[in-house]
Amino acid sequence: MLEKLKQEVYDANLRLVREGLVLLTWGNASAVDRTERVVVIKPSGVPYAEMRPEHMVLVSLDTGQIIGGQLAPSADTPTHIALYTAFTEIGGIAHTHSLYATAWAQAKREIPPFGMTHADHFHGAVPCTRMLKDSEIRTNYEKNTGKVIVERFKKLDPLARPGVLVANHAPFTWCTTVGNAVENAVVLERIVQMASETLMLNRSTTPLKKSLLEKHFLRKHGKQAYYGQKDK
Amino acid sequence: MLEKLKQEVYDANLRLVREGLVLLTWGNASAVDRTERVVVIKPSGVPYAEMRPEHMVLVSLDTGQIIGGQLAPSADTPTHIALYTAFTEIGGIAHTHSLYATAWAQAKREIPPFGMTHADHFHGAVPCTRMLKDSEIRTNYEKNTGKVIVERFKKLDPLARPGVLVANHAPFTWCTTVGNAVENAVVLERIVQMASETLMLNRSTTPLKKSLLEKHFLRKHGKQAYYGQKDK
Amino acid sequence: MLEKLKQEVYDANLRLVREGLVLLTWGNASAVDRTERVVVIKPSGVPYAEMRPEHMVLVSLDTGQIIGGQLAPSADTPTHIALYTAFTEIGGIAHTHSLYATAWAQAKREIPPFGMTHADHFHGAVPCTRMLKDSEIRTNYEKNTGKVIVERFKKLDPLARPGVLVANHAPFTWCTTVGNAVENAVVLERIVQMASETLMLNRSTTPLKKSLLEKHFLRKHGKQAYYGQKDK
Amino acid sequence: MLEKLKQEVYDANLRLVREGLVLLTWGNASAVDRTERVVVIKPSGVPYAEMRPEHMVLVSLDTGQIIGGQLAPSADTPTHIALYTAFTEIGGIAHTHSLYATAWAQAKREIPPFGMTHADHFHGAVPCTRMLKDSEIRTNYEKNTGKVIVERFKKLDPLARPGVLVANHAPFTWCTTVGNAVENAVVLERIVQMASETLMLNRSTTPLKKSLLEKHFLRKHGKQAYYGQKDK
Repeated sequence: MLEKLKQEVYDANLRLVREGLVLLTWGNASAVDRTERVVVIKPSGVPYAEMRPEHMVLVSLDTGQIIGGQLAPSADTPTHIALYTAFTEIGGIAHTHSLYATAWAQAKREIPPFGMTHADHFHGAVPCTRMLKDSEIRTNYEKNTGKVIVERFKKLDPLARPGVLVANHAPFTWCTTVGNAVENAVVLERIVQMASETLMLNRSTTPLKKSLLEKHFLRKHGKQAYYGQKDK
Repeated sequence: MLEKLKQEVYDANLRLVREGLVLLTWGNASAVDRTERVVVIKPSGVPYAEMRPEHMVLVSLDTGQIIGGQLAPSADTPTHIALYTAFTEIGGIAHTHSLYATAWAQAKREIPPFGMTHADHFHGAVPCTRMLKDSEIRTNYEKNTGKVIVERFKKLDPLARPGVLVANHAPFTWCTTVGNAVENAVVLERIVQMASETLMLNRSTTPLKKSLLEKHFLRKHGKQAYYGQKDK
Repeated sequence: MLEKLKQEVYDANLRLVREGLVLLTWGNASAVDRTERVVVIKPSGVPYAEMRPEHMVLVSLDTGQIIGGQLAPSADTPTHIALYTAFTEIGGIAHTHSLYATAWAQAKREIPPFGMTHADHFHGAVPCTRMLKDSEIRTNYEKNTGKVIVERFKKLDPLARPGVLVANHAPFTWCTTVGNAVENAVVLERIVQMASETLMLNRSTTPLKKSLLEKHFLRKHGKQAYYGQKDK
Repeated sequence: MLEKLKQEVYDANLRLVREGLVLLTWGNASAVDRTERVVVIKPSGVPYAEMRPEHMVLVSLDTGQIIGGQLAPSADTPTHIALYTAFTEIGGIAHTHSLYATAWAQAKREIPPFGMTHADHFHGAVPCTRMLKDSEIRTNYEKNTGKVIVERFKKLDPLARPGVLVANHAPFTWCTTVGNAVENAVVLERIVQMASETLMLNRSTTPLKKSLLEKHFLRKHGKQAYYGQKDK
């Protein structure tokens, strides 16, 4: 079971490279096995070309301790654990420094839903966290990065808005599986790029009206969904 | 005959991927056989890599009912049918969420003819529809998407302006064949990108004067055309 | 001799595709044999994937008549002939609708020399022509396109500024060989892109001062050149 | 030993092409052997496709004279020597005309640290040199290019800010090895692109606060670094 998950996490990490979302050793993807209470995550700073499925690191969801694997896990592991702990329905997380989403994070702007492409995947704006305080940076920085994300989702459904911009930093996306978390990273980068271009054309473009936002999100999600094949 | 059309529609859909106009399962292309009164269209939500020619779905041009194929057709099928019904000279349609055309649709701006590249393919601005009303969104949303496109072309020749931006949504293009509809999607994305960059350089650039617009469109289209090989 | 030139012209046209400077059947490259007084040019509207060296068309430099080849030459042939006639030192021409250079042509702006990359290849701004008059558009449009380019170079050395933007249309580049003409099209597109980005950062950036412009152009061109290998 | 370094320098130069940082024969990378007091550098103006490891040129670090190789060294060799002489801890240098970094150099703007991606690699803004004086351009231009870089780093640590923009020209990056110098060129281009996009979204974005800048740079560099594998 964990072998299968290691392969999935490995595949998801490599897809980040293929989709052009990461450079060098940047980025990381993980999955959680909630029965075993284990997080499977990319090792820290290993070149993607040399990475193998067996390099994936096993970390306890409860203690954060390494419980399997020869390598040190991603430095961002405490952020992943914080998200898995708070968002109990998610199964995978992807973190990239993709160009456009990172630029919006640096500009500390949430991404308004300007069109159907956005509404098909995010049920409202993609939120942006507050900046971390100096004390939150000095101690347990990565854990506190998770904390400000969770704080931002206090009144939001993480599966209806499967991603966030961490102010000054970059995006995190998630979903029920790590494969879909990576797919959300792909989608996020594209809708951010569309939003940039939309603003370039018209600085005062207004977000989608609620009826359209509902229509498109619910075409693809929930009981009334009619996009895709029924048996899927 | 329909087997050949299924292959053509399949090829056209895959070309959308190769040209970088669609991501994941986004986008769709279709063709119509007006003798058989059948629309051949991409199935809904099937990954492009797994799609085969035999997955194309046959839908009645008159009733919109599935009349062949094992899968559910694209959710946008009612839009395609509305266009085939109103624009009787077209034979194929392509729908993408290509980056630049979608951004202009989100900004709700028609695309002015700023240069010859535009004039070679579109005989005037690429129009943008009005926004749908809430009642048009709630019921028969996809059919009404077709309705607002047709409404916008009341005084326009669909073959002389083979594409449109649906406000808040994305572009549709068409032509006499599905292959050429996809080619128009490729051209549209490029001229939109040129228009964005032109505006970036000079916000008050004026559209092409009429004499140039005529010259370039008529070099390639109509009886006086002298571009290309005579026997083509 | 002409066989060799047909191969060169064919290769140059295909390189326009590989470098991303043309889409579909857009663009064309040609070479001249001044002894034989023959222009070798791409056929009109033939897909690049189906084009073969033997499809290149031979046209008289003096009369513009086809003197070899089975296909109709590029519709822009009269422009090429006008340039070969006026610029007696050039041996090859490339015409593209490359994204950035075309956007500047649409904005009707010459490209100021903002940096060394520009100065390495163009000894001053890349000029932009005036717009054609209606009478020049109605009759002999392509020949008159050549005329306004030549007019713009009245006081300029075509080899020191091996390219131009035709207002509302797109760029032409040239050089002593068709291969180098294509290389200048590659360079032009990149320096235009750099100029766009430079202006985005600072609308009031001033062009390079004369001493730097001279230094860089003369590092690569003329008797004092010291870039590259001596025997080259 | 020098054979190994020639191979490394050759590999580094080819990587500049693969990463899309150079066109045609633009750009160059070099390494220094401080024991032998030899600089190994790319030959001038040789097409990358024809370049071989044995074409790398050996130049004396002390006199600038060619001491090995059949070809003339890069015209920028005196700049490299000036940097190796002043920055005694660096082992390799890369020079490109990469699109975004060159545009910022042309706009004569230093690159503020807008986010963690920047802070992971550059401990503060990427500096921009002053413009060269006419006398510095006329005589020993390339050496003086090195001089203004060194001047700009009077109070800066070259390993903590491993790159610079030369005003009106383009970037230079460096590191302890030529491979890492090229990696810094890759990183620089990406963070510049992020900075451009950030400014497009918000002209008045402020740089990262000091606590975050410190945190991220020191996660990866120095004694307290905890990114990557311990034994690396």
